Amino acid sequence: MKIVVLKFGGTSVGSTDRIKKVSKIIISYVQKKYKVIVVSSAMSGVTNDLVKKSKKISNEFVSDEYDVLVSAGEQMSCSLIAGRLNHLGYKSRSWLGWQIPILTEGKHSSSRIQKIYKKNIIKYLKLGGIPIVAGFQGINSENRITTVGRGGTDASAIMLARFFRAEKCIIYTDVDGVYTSDPNTIKKAKKIKVISYEEMLEMASSGAKVMQPHSIQDARLNRINIEVKSSFKKSLGTLITKRKNIFSSKIIRGISFTKNDAKVTLIGVKDKPGIAAAIFEPLYKNSINVDMVVQNISPNGKETDLTFTIKSENLNKTQKLLKKSKKISFRKIIVDSKVSKVSIIGVGMITTPGVTYRMFNALAKKNINIIVISTSEIKISVLVNRKNLNKAIIALHKEFNLEK
Amino acid sequence: MKIVVLKFGGTSVGSTDRIKKVSKIIISYVQKKYKVIVVSSAMSGVTNDLVKKSKKISNEFVSDEYDVLVSAGEQMSCSLIAGRLNHLGYKSRSWLGWQIPILTEGKHSSSRIQKIYKKNIIKYLKLGGIPIVAGFQGINSENRITTVGRGGTDASAIMLARFFRAEKCIIYTDVDGVYTSDPNTIKKAKKIKVISYEEMLEMASSGAKVMQPHSIQDARLNRINIEVKSSFKKSLGTLITKRKNIFSSKIIRGISFTKNDAKVTLIGVKDKPGIAAAIFEPLYKNSINVDMVVQNISPNGKETDLTFTIKSENLNKTQKLLKKSKKISFRKIIVDSKVSKVSIIGVGMITTPGVTYRMFNALAKKNINIIVISTSEIKISVLVNRKNLNKAIIALHKEFNLEK
Repeated sequence: MKIVVLKFGGTSVGSTDRIKKVSKIIISYVQKKYKVIVVSSAMSGVTNDLVKKSKKISNEFVSDEYDVLVSAGEQMSCSLIAGRLNHLGYKSRSWLGWQIPILTEGKHSSSRIQKIYKKNIIKYLKLGGIPIVAGFQGINSENRITTVGRGGTDASAIMLARFFRAEKCIIYTDVDGVYTSDPNTIKKAKKIKVISYEEMLEMASSGAKVMQPHSIQDARLNRINIEVKSSFKKSLGTLITKRKNIFSSKIIRGISFTKNDAKVTLIGVKDKPGIAAAIFEPLYKNSINVDMVVQNISPNGKETDLTFTIKSENLNKTQKLLKKSKKISFRKIIVDSKVSKVSIIGVGMITTPGVTYRMFNALAKKNINIIVISTSEIKISVLVNRKNLNKAIIALHKEFNLEK
Repeated sequence: MKIVVLKFGGTSVGSTDRIKKVSKIIISYVQKKYKVIVVSSAMSGVTNDLVKKSKKISNEFVSDEYDVLVSAGEQMSCSLIAGRLNHLGYKSRSWLGWQIPILTEGKHSSSRIQKIYKKNIIKYLKLGGIPIVAGFQGINSENRITTVGRGGTDASAIMLARFFRAEKCIIYTDVDGVYTSDPNTIKKAKKIKVISYEEMLEMASSGAKVMQPHSIQDARLNRINIEVKSSFKKSLGTLITKRKNIFSSKIIRGISFTKNDAKVTLIGVKDKPGIAAAIFEPLYKNSINVDMVVQNISPNGKETDLTFTIKSENLNKTQKLLKKSKKISFRKIIVDSKVSKVSIIGVGMITTPGVTYRMFNALAKKNINIIVISTSEIKISVLVNRKNLNKAIIALHKEFNLEK
C-alpha cells in the first residue's frame, strides 16, 4: 500500500469553509492513488477556549480531566472533515484515540505515543475508506484519554507515518515552508527547499515555529521524510529529510534568532566543584530555562565569572532566586534585559573551515559587538545588543548567500 | 449502596459559574451519605453550535459522524464538572459512553440504551469517587459513538437509575417543577408536588416541556421515582411516581394546551375501508404529525366528513399533499389555522363521574365554543378558537380547584 499521512493544523481547519478546502486537498491524494491517512488538530481557537474554561474552573485543573476536555476539540474537527468527505461521495470516518487505539505512556497532558494498533485502520483502508484520525490524543493503559502536549498533532502525524510505514508525511499549515530566516523580519528571506533534521531541529529550537522540536526528533529517529506545506495556497513546501538526501552547496541553511533574551553575569563566584549546578538548581526548580552559558577561567583559581541567558520575562524572578540562594556566593550581579541571540545553522560548516571567522568578521564590519559566543556542531550563536539584531541578521544573510 | 442519580440539563451547566454552582449541589448529596452518579448534558448553546457547523458542512450530514460531533459537548461539560469537584477536594472523574461502556442499539442519532455495564462504576463508587457520566451518548456493537436523540440526557439518567437501582433520580433543570398549567400564561398556576407517570406523560405530550415523553415512559416501565427540581434556586420540586404513591383528592392534576394548531376538515370523503389510512399516508411520509382525529358517521353510508388537527406550520404542505394524492377523493376542504387544544389531565377522572360535563359546562358559561372533542382514559381535550384559549384555561383551572 502506498500510504501518505496528511496532517492539518488548527488554522488549516479553522472554519467550516477551511474544512471544505482541506477536503479537496485530501481528495487530490486519493485521486493520485494514495491510501490517505488524515490527522487533524482542533479548529483554531477551540483549544484555547477550552483551556480558558478550565482555568475559570480551577487554577490547577487536574491533568486527567484536562485531557478529556481538550481532546474534544479534535473529535469535533475530525467528524466535520469526515462529514464533508461523505458529502462529496467519499467513504470516510473519524477515528478517535480509543477506537484505533493509540496507546500512550507517561503523565497526562504530556504523554508520548508508545504504540499505534494498525489492524482497524489497515482494514478500513483496504475497504477504500479515508480515516480521519484525531491528533494530539491517545489512551493510557487505564483506558483514560491522554494528550501529547500542545502542538502534539505533529507528533501524532509522525507516529502514524512510522507505524504505517507511510511513503510521505505532509504537514499542512498556515506557512508555506521553512525560510532562511523569519520572512516577517527579513524581507530577503528565501524558502528552503530541503533541510536536514538536524538543521531543522536547530531552526525550530531557535524560534522557527513550523514544527515542534520533539516531533522533528521523532521523525529523525524513524527516518521519516516530512514535507511542510501551506493548505492556503498551492506552492512547493520544504522537505525535511536526512543529510544524505541533500545535495546543496550551501554552507549555511538558515539564520534563527530570539527577540526577548536577558543576560545575567555573576561576578566573583567562589570557584569550587558543583558551583554551576548550585546556581542553576533554583532556576530549574522554578521552570526557568537557561540558554547560553559561559564561564570565564578564574585567574587566581579562587573566583570566577559566570554569564548565562534566560527569557527576559524571567529576569526578575531569576535575580530574586539567586540572591536568596544559600548555596552560592558571588560579589556582584550584572544584568542586561535587552539582548538577542542570532544563530547561523548548517551542516555544511562541519566540513568548511572559516565559518566562524566569516561570521564574526561580517558582524565586526557592521560595528556589532558580540557579547557571548556559543557553538555546536552545526550552529554558531552569538549574543548581541537587541538594537543590533536586524542589522546582524541582514549582514549574515548576505554573507552566507542565503538571498539567492 | 444508597445511590442517587443527579441529572443536569444544559442551562444548569451553561457557564463555568453554573458548573461551580452544580458542583455544590453534588457535594450536598455526598454529605448526606449518598453514592452519587452525576449525568450531564452539554453546556447550553454548545450542541446548537455544533449542529449549525454540521449543516454548513452538509445539508445531509452523515448520522454516524453527527454523533461523534455532538457527543463532544457532553465530554466537555463532564470534564469541567469533574475538574471542579477535584478542585474542591473530592475524588471525581468523567466517564464517557465508551469507558463505562453504555451499549446502545438502533440507528445513529436516535439510538436506545440497551445495557449499561456496571462493574467499572461500582468499583469507582466503592473507592469513594463521584462519576460524572456523559449523557446522551453511548456506543454500538461496532464501537462507534451513538447518541439517543435531542434531550437524550434524560434517557441516560433514567437508564443509569435503572441499572444501578438508584433510590432516586433527580432531574435538575431551569424550571422548579411541573405546574398545573404554564405559569407564564396562567398566573394562578401552582406547582404540582406529586404526579403520576401517566399524567406526566399526558402533560409532556401536550406541551409541558420539562421532560421528554419517552424518558417518562422508561421511568414508568422501570418504576423509577423522578424528582424534577431547579438547579437555580432552592425549592421543592415535583415528584413523578406511580399512581399508588399518590394520595390526593384532586380529580384533575393539570391543564395543558397547545398554541399553534390548525384544523383540516375534508367534506364528502368516499366512505370505504382504508380511506383514513390513505388520507394520512402522505402526511406520515412527510413527517407531518396528526394530533386529534374525528370522523362523523356517514348518514347515507357513502360519504363522510373527516376532521383532524396538525401544527399550523404544516398547514400549507398538508393541503398540497391532500389535493395531490390520487388515492383519495373528497368534495371540499375547509381549514382553520387559528385553533388551540386545551386538555384537562388527571387519573382521578377514571373514578369520578361528571368530569366531562363539568368541563363542557365551565366552557359554555364563558361562551367558548368547542370545535372538536377527544378523550382518553385520563385526559379530555377540546379544540377551541385560539382567541378563547386563555379564557378557557382560566375557567378550567378554577373549575377544578387547581388554584389551591
